[in-house]
Amino acid sequence: MAEIKEYGEFGLIRHLTENFPLKNKSSLYGVGDDCAVIDTDPAEGKLVVTTDLLLEGVHFDLTYCPLTHLGYKACVVNFSDVYAMMGTPRQITVSVGISKRFKVEDMEQLYAGMKLACDTYGVDLVGGDTSTSMTGLTLSITAIGVAKQPVYRNGAKPNDLICVSGDLGAAYMGLQLLEREKTIYYQQYEDWRRTGSKEAMPQFQPKFEGKEYLLERQLKPEARKDIVQKLQETGIQPTSMMDISDGLSSELLHICKQSQVGCRIYEERIPIDYQTAVQAEEFNLNVSTCALNGGEDYELLFTVPLAQSEKIQQLSGIRLIGHITDERLGTAMITRDGNSEIALKAQGWNAFTK
Amino acid sequence: MAEIKEYGEFGLIRHLTENFPLKNKSSLYGVGDDCAVIDTDPAEGKLVVTTDLLLEGVHFDLTYCPLTHLGYKACVVNFSDVYAMMGTPRQITVSVGISKRFKVEDMEQLYAGMKLACDTYGVDLVGGDTSTSMTGLTLSITAIGVAKQPVYRNGAKPNDLICVSGDLGAAYMGLQLLEREKTIYYQQYEDWRRTGSKEAMPQFQPKFEGKEYLLERQLKPEARKDIVQKLQETGIQPTSMMDISDGLSSELLHICKQSQVGCRIYEERIPIDYQTAVQAEEFNLNVSTCALNGGEDYELLFTVPLAQSEKIQQLSGIRLIGHITDERLGTAMITRDGNSEIALKAQGWNAFTK
Repeated sequence: MAEIKEYGEFGLIRHLTENFPLKNKSSLYGVGDDCAVIDTDPAEGKLVVTTDLLLEGVHFDLTYCPLTHLGYKACVVNFSDVYAMMGTPRQITVSVGISKRFKVEDMEQLYAGMKLACDTYGVDLVGGDTSTSMTGLTLSITAIGVAKQPVYRNGAKPNDLICVSGDLGAAYMGLQLLEREKTIYYQQYEDWRRTGSKEAMPQFQPKFEGKEYLLERQLKPEARKDIVQKLQETGIQPTSMMDISDGLSSELLHICKQSQVGCRIYEERIPIDYQTAVQAEEFNLNVSTCALNGGEDYELLFTVPLAQSEKIQQLSGIRLIGHITDERLGTAMITRDGNSEIALKAQGWNAFTK
Repeated sequence: MAEIKEYGEFGLIRHLTENFPLKNKSSLYGVGDDCAVIDTDPAEGKLVVTTDLLLEGVHFDLTYCPLTHLGYKACVVNFSDVYAMMGTPRQITVSVGISKRFKVEDMEQLYAGMKLACDTYGVDLVGGDTSTSMTGLTLSITAIGVAKQPVYRNGAKPNDLICVSGDLGAAYMGLQLLEREKTIYYQQYEDWRRTGSKEAMPQFQPKFEGKEYLLERQLKPEARKDIVQKLQETGIQPTSMMDISDGLSSELLHICKQSQVGCRIYEERIPIDYQTAVQAEEFNLNVSTCALNGGEDYELLFTVPLAQSEKIQQLSGIRLIGHITDERLGTAMITRDGNSEIALKAQGWNAFTK
């Protein structure tokens, strides 16, 4: 295993980024100067920019999140923000703070994941910064893209239909599952240590059979490039849009607040995968609560005018879950039995109260 | 003092950024959506993008660096990279990881410094991310600007003149001074503690009289917007350019390596301020070494064709320090006595060996 300091800052960046040839014609100059240089073409649309800071122990746990997966996910969550503007991601910059316990090979894994994400989504890594860190791994990614007609959160109008892509709650269930197995593992380790046994600790086998989808949603999420493409091909221009990273409930409240409208969604219309439902039951959790408040789905939440109703229903992978109302009617979910309304609350993931 | 968790992530961002109205017409949408939206105009030039990661205990020490200064400096070092492309910074995104010991008022100070920098340089804060951090303060800034004819590091040609703005080594001297006083303070504190005295510790007075310039260069550096403007007004297009953040020697080697050329600089031509020289003597350091290898000057290093010699000598604040040679002649400094050549070495600041 190679020590990072053998490479030095510039050597390390060069080593890690040499497998990232530039693909987009707008990427004029990548890593290696004071700035990256990007060409602009108004015909391509406006520029959209988003940034995310990921800190070890807060946003990820390397006990069960392999570094390649972390690299992939860190890119994808930024791409997701670009798609949520009806944009196309083109460039990223990546800054990494690396503590002493990481070796060059670890960073190679991290960058392999980022390369896979960049190749899959047609994005160029054009710059960044690496540094030592006193504690843990720090990852900061900025994504730049283009959007012909950016879709904001503030354009929803009464009677618009509320749409969601894919299904919700699976990533949260995946996280619960990983946390459970981690606890069991540490318990077995403690038990083994306490016996003072001289034999090796029995190999730990986490119980993940039949739950592959939940794990994949947590460890290797995808951004909904396909949904944005479908909408563009069908000529549907949403009135508002965002990606669901903190839970449907919290995101819908953002749209309603910024658009100054209310909403009604139907519990029975919320898309939930079979594995999510089974797992919620196993954990004795209300599956709707998981779908409303579980984070990291990276699905798209958007509104379209009522007139687009037929068009949108012909697209696969999109579910109508309710409609926008006048602001005075508030924000609520109609329960499965159709008899009562529950006010939506922002109980989503909050990095400050975790 | 208000706890950060009382505000929550979105409340905190809103609170900290509400005093940042957008100034540039290219800043179409700032904080509050999935992405910031930026307008592009090819007549304005290409887009240039740079990013910096600043970690507590590695890049800054809050013992002597007030949070407002840190906010100011964190912005300025990114602007400096944009100017080093002959560009103009327009937008920044700011991500902050905040550990529990910080209060809302601390973050207000940090953002006050960033606001001052943004106002001074005409830049808009358009987005970012805030999160809790397990340890220390993490700051990641990405700056976006425009450059009509970006100047890279790789365009220097034999016989080009090597120019430097301002003076060098002062920021490094400032850092040594702060570190010395910090050590003395801790020593006094230890002595006082050991005596078991019930009286308050005698107030500590750091010795900074007559050294204000050194401290300012370290704690509140400026980016050389004025130099870029002068060059543009005079119609001088440098063949290569970068900013001096890791020391003249290291940066000049970057330019020579990327341009495939050699260089000769003259020790007696290196611009050094009087306070820097006095302080180097006090510390028994070679002042040229400080100027060559001390970091964080944020001055501009650039090359211009020999034909521009007269024009460039008429500009104040720019010093010719040598010339570019054929690659085979290597990279060296001619000493003050004119009799010997010393090979340049990259002994600049390296975050991985610190």
